[in-house]
Amino acid sequence: MGIITDNGVVYKPVDDVDLGPHSDQIYLHADVKAPRMAGLIAKVFVWSLEMKLIGNVLVYFLKKNNRIQKLVSFGVMEDAPLYVPLHPYKEDTEEEEVKSLCPDMSPAEQVQHAIDCLQSPDAKLQESHFSFRRWKIMDYSRAYSSGQMTPLVVAERLISAVVQSSDPGTDMSFFISYDARDILRQATESTLRYQRGGPISVLDGVPIAVKDEIDCSPYPTTGGSTWLHKVRPCKGDACCVKRLRSCGAILVGKTNMHELGAGTSGINPQYGASRNPYNPKRISGGSSSGSAAVVCAGLCPVALGVDGGGSVRMPAALCGVVGLKPSYGRIPHSGVLPLNWTVGMVGVLAGTVEDSLIVYAAISGQSEQHQPTVVPPRLKLPILKHSNMSSSIKLAKYDEWFSDCSDDIRSCCLKALASLQKLYGWKTVEVTIPDIEVMRLAHYVTIGSECTASIAHHLKNKGRPESGWDVRVALSIYGSFDSRDYLNAQRIRNRQMRFHEKIFSMADVIVSPTVGVTAYEIKDDAQKTGELDYVNGAALVRYSIAGNFLGLPAVTVPIGYDKLGLPIGIQFIGKPWSEAKLIQIAYAMEALCEAEYKKPQVFYDLLGEC
Amino acid sequence: MGIITDNGVVYKPVDDVDLGPHSDQIYLHADVKAPRMAGLIAKVFVWSLEMKLIGNVLVYFLKKNNRIQKLVSFGVMEDAPLYVPLHPYKEDTEEEEVKSLCPDMSPAEQVQHAIDCLQSPDAKLQESHFSFRRWKIMDYSRAYSSGQMTPLVVAERLISAVVQSSDPGTDMSFFISYDARDILRQATESTLRYQRGGPISVLDGVPIAVKDEIDCSPYPTTGGSTWLHKVRPCKGDACCVKRLRSCGAILVGKTNMHELGAGTSGINPQYGASRNPYNPKRISGGSSSGSAAVVCAGLCPVALGVDGGGSVRMPAALCGVVGLKPSYGRIPHSGVLPLNWTVGMVGVLAGTVEDSLIVYAAISGQSEQHQPTVVPPRLKLPILKHSNMSSSIKLAKYDEWFSDCSDDIRSCCLKALASLQKLYGWKTVEVTIPDIEVMRLAHYVTIGSECTASIAHHLKNKGRPESGWDVRVALSIYGSFDSRDYLNAQRIRNRQMRFHEKIFSMADVIVSPTVGVTAYEIKDDAQKTGELDYVNGAALVRYSIAGNFLGLPAVTVPIGYDKLGLPIGIQFIGKPWSEAKLIQIAYAMEALCEAEYKKPQVFYDLLGEC
Repeated sequence: MGIITDNGVVYKPVDDVDLGPHSDQIYLHADVKAPRMAGLIAKVFVWSLEMKLIGNVLVYFLKKNNRIQKLVSFGVMEDAPLYVPLHPYKEDTEEEEVKSLCPDMSPAEQVQHAIDCLQSPDAKLQESHFSFRRWKIMDYSRAYSSGQMTPLVVAERLISAVVQSSDPGTDMSFFISYDARDILRQATESTLRYQRGGPISVLDGVPIAVKDEIDCSPYPTTGGSTWLHKVRPCKGDACCVKRLRSCGAILVGKTNMHELGAGTSGINPQYGASRNPYNPKRISGGSSSGSAAVVCAGLCPVALGVDGGGSVRMPAALCGVVGLKPSYGRIPHSGVLPLNWTVGMVGVLAGTVEDSLIVYAAISGQSEQHQPTVVPPRLKLPILKHSNMSSSIKLAKYDEWFSDCSDDIRSCCLKALASLQKLYGWKTVEVTIPDIEVMRLAHYVTIGSECTASIAHHLKNKGRPESGWDVRVALSIYGSFDSRDYLNAQRIRNRQMRFHEKIFSMADVIVSPTVGVTAYEIKDDAQKTGELDYVNGAALVRYSIAGNFLGLPAVTVPIGYDKLGLPIGIQFIGKPWSEAKLIQIAYAMEALCEAEYKKPQVFYDLLGEC
Repeated sequence: MGIITDNGVVYKPVDDVDLGPHSDQIYLHADVKAPRMAGLIAKVFVWSLEMKLIGNVLVYFLKKNNRIQKLVSFGVMEDAPLYVPLHPYKEDTEEEEVKSLCPDMSPAEQVQHAIDCLQSPDAKLQESHFSFRRWKIMDYSRAYSSGQMTPLVVAERLISAVVQSSDPGTDMSFFISYDARDILRQATESTLRYQRGGPISVLDGVPIAVKDEIDCSPYPTTGGSTWLHKVRPCKGDACCVKRLRSCGAILVGKTNMHELGAGTSGINPQYGASRNPYNPKRISGGSSSGSAAVVCAGLCPVALGVDGGGSVRMPAALCGVVGLKPSYGRIPHSGVLPLNWTVGMVGVLAGTVEDSLIVYAAISGQSEQHQPTVVPPRLKLPILKHSNMSSSIKLAKYDEWFSDCSDDIRSCCLKALASLQKLYGWKTVEVTIPDIEVMRLAHYVTIGSECTASIAHHLKNKGRPESGWDVRVALSIYGSFDSRDYLNAQRIRNRQMRFHEKIFSMADVIVSPTVGVTAYEIKDDAQKTGELDYVNGAALVRYSIAGNFLGLPAVTVPIGYDKLGLPIGIQFIGKPWSEAKLIQIAYAMEALCEAEYKKPQVFYDLLGEC
């Protein structure tokens, strides 16, 4: 930040900002004055906002002198806008233990290369001492190949588990739609392939769930709403789903999500609040709420999500699973709801880092979209070994950031960092990341403006009145940004891109907590109207923004639990296109923690008795 | 266009639109209801617009149901936004007679390569029969090298011509600032270099003027305003100016321009209306008004302009000179006023195609700006010969477009096209370019939004009250766009990019008139307040937009005169990065017309008696 004037902040030129630990840059805590709202109060607020005259006056006063205006719209800077977070590729000559793939491989071939990157099972740590572990893709594959289990039996168990989870008493709200017949059909075909000795890949017969923001036949793509699929019919599989299907995976249905992705709690008044399997009274996080919850509950080793503002990583952290969000442009985006254009990316939620790698390999490829983009560099896969982890990794750490979270999260993350340093000899570099709160606001302006432009023509007739009350507030604010707000947000994007480039010249990755709070309670008044809780929202989203606004790859790994037994995650944010190194780092982190993983309260053991 | 609904147009998918001559796409004429305004009426309009409440209500009614709303903001389409008109480079294997330069050459080396591409003087057509011709760079160079003339004498003549042109009787308003001492200092140094036998390049000692939107020491960069240079001091030469200076060119001052580039007439209430040397009662066009006028009047063989919405090509056509606007990203943009970020590009105004090539070669290079961009491909220079013009050139022509201009312009352009076909055997391909009027409006939203975001923080204190009345209206409209307007404009950019890609698969270039009207009169009431004349404005800008909004290279060549003796230009729009071919085509066109060029009423013969 720079000088604060009556109108807006005057920012220093990027090159004049000190990024060292003793920088004069002030860490700005989220200053969220908005009270929590739900139930009747939320409704009255929405009615006022949506009235033409009163609404305009209300928005005028909400915007006047608020932080978005001071820090974004009226910010004074020399930087030009940067609209799309695409990074030109510079070959990283230092990369170790990485396998570089030729372009134009099939998804199944890429998966095979990923398998070649895994440690052999005997080389792994003694897993028998683990208190709890989830079944992995390789467990499914081995069980199917050995004939101990068939995809059909797994599918039947899964269907009955989903039915059970939907009981009024449990009411986990995992899925928006699933079709037992379609699941059984896929499982039968897969079972036949194994019987004939010809599975397509290790993913053959593995159940995978897909966030209801991604097209997947035969389901409508609701985006968590009751109306979007009616105005935008799903015309077939999204590109990433097509790739998974071509590997033989069983697509088991569309997971619940925060309505229109416009929130972080996963409380969806239309399809129920996705509940956290570690404590069903608490949120799963969002917006990829169901995808995190089904992986956590053992229904799938992997699920797909979409991460527009931490929407894969936040629920992954709250549900104690791995969340991987690759670089912008790495995963083809066609067939994903266009709720925004420049911040959302398909990501992977998985029980283990190993599985996130396999599915990352399956879905990575060139986009089919009509936009001249930087062509992503060759796909690189990390060779996963604990024995020879590089000792030269440098982790950038911003101290203020580690203090802006709950005590349990802070101490758990610091402990994890200390063991990384101790066991692998990794170094921590203290840095200052300037204007993180400014970036959060600029990202909010961006995602809100893009969402409005994309769906506004539907809102008029159908969308708005059929949406939840919390989403209607969001839509009113989203629609209030002018072109100057948007363009200045893109100028802040350019500044942050250059700040991060500089930080990555000092370190390999940035490390942070994934979220600032653990899963909080679902209150009764929130279930029917949705909930406006910007304080908790800001705490959840705090660490996620660079991954979206700057298109950087990021991963969250579960590292422990708070006093209430709720999961805590740590996040690593990587250089552009550095997924391979990021996955290696996540793998190393996981190895230090997995022996202490706990079983969720709600858990289904699909391979259990094989 | 597609189905028109109550709210907005529903656009067809790009692939479903027929681009052939019998397409069902309707050509939409500019529907400009706004009356011409100047003088007191303009002032009253501005006062109302700038009042808080009344202004908002006024803008609300101006926007309501107008074409921007129907065609842009409320347009329904599937396309994602395309924010920056950068084209990935595909090697064109068909290119003939082109010289490809290594990167990292100095400007003077690039100029030398351009010279090697020129025809030898004796191979040229018999120039003695020309009724009128301007001195070219090579004429200056030869006169200096032979000792017939010195840069110092030229500089002295130039200074006295500028003084003369500023007489109350003539009042051409060519320059905003020029410094006789600085000019004479440069000329003295250049003269010394020739005396010592060591000119830097053929540009050594050649006078070149620079639009006052481009930084050039020791002058302030006013952007045609009375205040912008006070809040953004010029810190040295822009990159393109630095390159010219390194070739030995004499930078002779900053040319007049439409205030803030926010208009097309060149009537600037602060610095006077740049007058057309062919008829000083008429406009020169704008916004690079002075740059076109000084070249036309013989003061410089070449001047630099900036083209954000035809601002190089329009005044070039109205003043009967050549105007070249290269591809977006080809000329470094640093040191140019950031009046927008994605549509404005430095361009060249020149008396001849040959000179536009030389200066194009001098200023082309890599941008220094901090933005990950597509790196422009190697610079290619065309070998200029009349004898062996390729006979395989295909010109795309949209018939409706040739009808939407004055009769004189239409017949002159058609005649020029016919002679190209006859003499070189070039073919015309009839096409339909859809949604040209939509593109014009989308471009207007874009340039207006970007201008606002860039300078809004200055407007509050200083800018607005010190600006001309016409510009104040523009600024009010510019500031009224919301983020949805802007984003939908970028979606239209993506559609148009794809339409144009398809048209370029059928033809080498698109041909059109450069402007729809010839130079119109400067009315008395316009001079003090500026003038709002959207009818003439739309007619001028009609053919220019693809060059800016899509970043395509384009060139205008003078081809004749209307009944009043006012110049007419023809425009060629090329594929991305196809400047070399475009300059060849322009050279061929010029060869067919130059024998009939007429001398402007106001003309200074700087090399005359050497």
